[in-house]
Amino acid sequence: MEHYPILDRIQSPSDLRALGDWEVGRLCYEIRQFLIEHVSRTGGHLASNLGAVELTVALHRVFDSPKDSIVWDVGHQSYTHKILTGRKERFSTLRQRNGLSGFPKPEESEHDAFVAGHASTSISAAYGIACANKMSGNDHTAVAVVGDGAFTGGMIYEAINNAGRSNVRLVIVLNHNDMSISRNVGAFARYLSTIRAKPGYLHVKQRVESILDHLPLVGRPLKRALRSSKSVLKYILFHNTFFEEMGLEYFGPVDGHNLQELEQVLRRAKGLGRPAVVQVETVKGKGYTFAERNPPAYHGVSQFDIQTGSPDGEPAPACNSFSAVFGAEMVKLGQNPKVCAITAAMAVGTGLDPFSKACRSRFFDVGIAEEHAVTFAAGLAVKGYIPVFAVYSTFFQRCFDQVLHDAALERTHIVLAIDRAGIVGDDGDTHQGIFDISLLTSMPGITIYSPATFDQLRADIKRALFEDSGVVAVRYPRGGENPCHCALGPEEDDVWLDGTGLTAISYGRTASALYEAVQEMEQPPEVVLLNRIWPFSEELVRVLARRKHILFFEESVQSGSICEHLLTALVKAGFNGKYEMVTLPDGFIRQCSIPWALEEYGLSAQAIGRRLCEAARENSDNILDEEKGW
Amino acid sequence: MEHYPILDRIQSPSDLRALGDWEVGRLCYEIRQFLIEHVSRTGGHLASNLGAVELTVALHRVFDSPKDSIVWDVGHQSYTHKILTGRKERFSTLRQRNGLSGFPKPEESEHDAFVAGHASTSISAAYGIACANKMSGNDHTAVAVVGDGAFTGGMIYEAINNAGRSNVRLVIVLNHNDMSISRNVGAFARYLSTIRAKPGYLHVKQRVESILDHLPLVGRPLKRALRSSKSVLKYILFHNTFFEEMGLEYFGPVDGHNLQELEQVLRRAKGLGRPAVVQVETVKGKGYTFAERNPPAYHGVSQFDIQTGSPDGEPAPACNSFSAVFGAEMVKLGQNPKVCAITAAMAVGTGLDPFSKACRSRFFDVGIAEEHAVTFAAGLAVKGYIPVFAVYSTFFQRCFDQVLHDAALERTHIVLAIDRAGIVGDDGDTHQGIFDISLLTSMPGITIYSPATFDQLRADIKRALFEDSGVVAVRYPRGGENPCHCALGPEEDDVWLDGTGLTAISYGRTASALYEAVQEMEQPPEVVLLNRIWPFSEELVRVLARRKHILFFEESVQSGSICEHLLTALVKAGFNGKYEMVTLPDGFIRQCSIPWALEEYGLSAQAIGRRLCEAARENSDNILDEEKGW
Repeated sequence: MEHYPILDRIQSPSDLRALGDWEVGRLCYEIRQFLIEHVSRTGGHLASNLGAVELTVALHRVFDSPKDSIVWDVGHQSYTHKILTGRKERFSTLRQRNGLSGFPKPEESEHDAFVAGHASTSISAAYGIACANKMSGNDHTAVAVVGDGAFTGGMIYEAINNAGRSNVRLVIVLNHNDMSISRNVGAFARYLSTIRAKPGYLHVKQRVESILDHLPLVGRPLKRALRSSKSVLKYILFHNTFFEEMGLEYFGPVDGHNLQELEQVLRRAKGLGRPAVVQVETVKGKGYTFAERNPPAYHGVSQFDIQTGSPDGEPAPACNSFSAVFGAEMVKLGQNPKVCAITAAMAVGTGLDPFSKACRSRFFDVGIAEEHAVTFAAGLAVKGYIPVFAVYSTFFQRCFDQVLHDAALERTHIVLAIDRAGIVGDDGDTHQGIFDISLLTSMPGITIYSPATFDQLRADIKRALFEDSGVVAVRYPRGGENPCHCALGPEEDDVWLDGTGLTAISYGRTASALYEAVQEMEQPPEVVLLNRIWPFSEELVRVLARRKHILFFEESVQSGSICEHLLTALVKAGFNGKYEMVTLPDGFIRQCSIPWALEEYGLSAQAIGRRLCEAARENSDNILDEEKGW
Repeated sequence: MEHYPILDRIQSPSDLRALGDWEVGRLCYEIRQFLIEHVSRTGGHLASNLGAVELTVALHRVFDSPKDSIVWDVGHQSYTHKILTGRKERFSTLRQRNGLSGFPKPEESEHDAFVAGHASTSISAAYGIACANKMSGNDHTAVAVVGDGAFTGGMIYEAINNAGRSNVRLVIVLNHNDMSISRNVGAFARYLSTIRAKPGYLHVKQRVESILDHLPLVGRPLKRALRSSKSVLKYILFHNTFFEEMGLEYFGPVDGHNLQELEQVLRRAKGLGRPAVVQVETVKGKGYTFAERNPPAYHGVSQFDIQTGSPDGEPAPACNSFSAVFGAEMVKLGQNPKVCAITAAMAVGTGLDPFSKACRSRFFDVGIAEEHAVTFAAGLAVKGYIPVFAVYSTFFQRCFDQVLHDAALERTHIVLAIDRAGIVGDDGDTHQGIFDISLLTSMPGITIYSPATFDQLRADIKRALFEDSGVVAVRYPRGGENPCHCALGPEEDDVWLDGTGLTAISYGRTASALYEAVQEMEQPPEVVLLNRIWPFSEELVRVLARRKHILFFEESVQSGSICEHLLTALVKAGFNGKYEMVTLPDGFIRQCSIPWALEEYGLSAQAIGRRLCEAARENSDNILDEEKGW
């Protein structure tokens, strides 16, 4: 256990402002040690937080939170902020059930000005807060802290378009480290690097202006030409950056690890009284060699050994996840020259990394831009290509309209590989993949697969690409397959297992649990393990409509779920048996382990087994009652 | 009937290329006459199409459609394109059932490269097409034609970020007329006007460069300073516009009504072989005085008299729509200094125009940026304001994730006024408001009202603002209330009417139809007219669960509808009666009149009446059968 003499004195941001220069420098060192020590034990986001230590300290010394509102974009870089705002003692509970959230949460602290978890929202929220401050007549400032990764998202631009040239107290801190989770892509990223490459942009501006003011005037025509040009030149010089063109005052680039410079520039931006952007250059992973050398590997980490930088315990084999199986299958299918893959800045997370190397010219990382990704895919598709957009379920929420309007409407053939479907665990309520079923099933003409095994996933992706038409979604959970369920073999389609009395239905990860649950039952129910979950086949509805008692287990919110739609279909087909749904609640589910959540909501193998036994007992009691004439 | 000697010779774009200069000029005149003549009879989008005549002609002379793909953003400005690509003869069927769509539709013509109806999608689609062309090894060009209004949407920026610095054949035509439907807002719009205000931006660039090259060098220190600055200056000068910074070649501004200049610049952009943007200055409504003077009034028009510019027939009183009633109520409620209103470039359409004048400082037009609008609203709300975001149902599809993640997750109190809910008629499948119920009901903690009368709307808005918490949606249809239903009086809550045998349920516009249908029935069913449609009250579910035969009439797709959710709730509560749902089909609904659609899908008063009578007859037959012991 390290000692943190300065950090231990910080109970709230106001304590920070009392520190002298040397102490603040030492504090930053202690914070880094604290972060490394704790995250090595709890797991969590490391590299981005190491990069933002000085920035966070400077922000809390210059701004007066919670009067001034600090809005963190995405928010996984807010650990130092949490430590400095009274949550140091609870930091060992990070990302655990009932512990500290890994993201800003207003209910957790008054210093968390706005919820975060999805990218590119901070300027919109901060501008709303800044407008509210103005209407209220106070002089508080709203600060949005955005990484350059999140700057690839369209909301940032919408917000700047709206906020630029306004007269509210808004400071946008652009934390520039060239990275999303992986290296940042796109024209804007290159542009930012260009700014940085110009040594002292601000200084050059001043120097050129001074030269213009002192230009010798030689000859009348040239003099006249220069005069009229000088005003144009000045305009160009002073409205040079994208930000200035959008009506924001621009400060930067500033060394994000130089506290004095940071504080000085932030103070100038704060004093301005109208929207400003401060470009801060930081190094992701700063201060921990392993993380500096390989930031993507230390973006989100499990427990690790501080000395070696290696993960604790046996590392899970990389091939042992749905994402990896998807990625490997894509490489295989990529031999067809029409197959393309698209990611929104998640090449590694979605498993597309191998495809990006094997089929370089047909791989597209579009930045954190899910909406554009879908319409771009539709553009590829109308010219005969087969695009696969791999996206986490929670981020798929971003592109409903694009899938509906730009693809489904004309039955354009695109494939959505929806990863992290269902409970995701530690990341909590901002990241659970529990709404995609409701979204997808409300769109006309969509096909949805939800494989339970790697074999099914492989078969589904292949069918989605080469057999189906229109929009096809293949959704699969975080992590790997249930070893028990693998015994089923390479089934490509829905699996029916005979049984009596009850009918139990499920799909995806919960299908595995259901399969496991019935393995040891003496009188197992009839079991239906769906693979293509939408639309229903007529056969399925016809058969199930004659059943007496159906139990549907589903890892989704209930409103708009497959089991709800199936009930509708069955009732239309004359079903009049008993129908029970075991689903996630219609609400948000906080951080927790995946097994805990599945058990809690009745979707683990054990919970399913118990429920089936109860139902069987009730039914036989009823039959006994009937036989006894009760 | 006018004569169109030149236009009549144009059967396809290739005919255009054979025309001489004089003929092309004359053609543009004829197209304008044709547009005015036809739209005055069919109604439709006028001003934007009059502004794009020369641009469209030039595009089809320079590019070779359909090899080259022309992607229209939003697409209501594509009338000239339709006329020139073989659809002139069918133009009198515009926006009518089985007629020409008012938007580009690939199924209608091979010249319609991509579907359009929602804003800001064109560059994404065109970049997809351009990448496909490159992969296919052909030299076709993809062209995106975007108005500056659509440039306020984030997808445009996401697409430019992705496409900039690529090496595909992509030409972005920025049709700059300072307008969305109303005057365009935001920093980018001002920026574009700044470019235009600099007389001949390209010329100034060349002139300043020439001056720099010929600068006399006076004194060694200055000489050295100038030399090192010159390269910086040149960089700045040649990377001056936003577009150039984003890695696009920039051409403009070009006079959008000067055919020769247009063709010359488009040809240069086409020859470039990498992404370019051409800024074209046009006048919305060009060539028809009334439209030039007041473009918003001629954006979308009903039939009108060409000589006077006045609408044909009695103009509908402006106060006679749900939008207007909403707007008037907002002015009243705006007396509370916490109430704010937000629009995404739809101040007039949503009825917020009066509020924008009465409560100027609390009115926010954020541009065509629905996502930003919601998160901005949440920002206002966390500081104690009560924001109302008024948005058409079809555009609400854009901001699902923002409502869920940035508002619902923390139960932030924002109000969504969802206009044009249900069938909208002439605009067709891209604009029907039939998915918002499915989207809203999948979000935890949402309250939804769907008023049937103006009185209910007023009461609902008030409750949404001052009594409810969290995210509250009030949704209402296009047009006015059913006069028959007004007889119900200012009911604020759900309406129950006694009856026997059957139970009929509905809400919103269809509730009016149901009410009308039962007025003249001898043995009316029990009638439930819901106003707060979500969540269900326990009382409602408890009472309905005992009913024998329920018919639910709903103007929504069925998947994820209120009637589907109600069935789930009833089955859980032990309901075992008959349950029938009359909804819109789970599909896209093309342009048609609203009454036609309601009749077609069984939701008009007549259709509902027939259905109720049938159901009553069936039930009494069954009872007779039972009595007879059959």
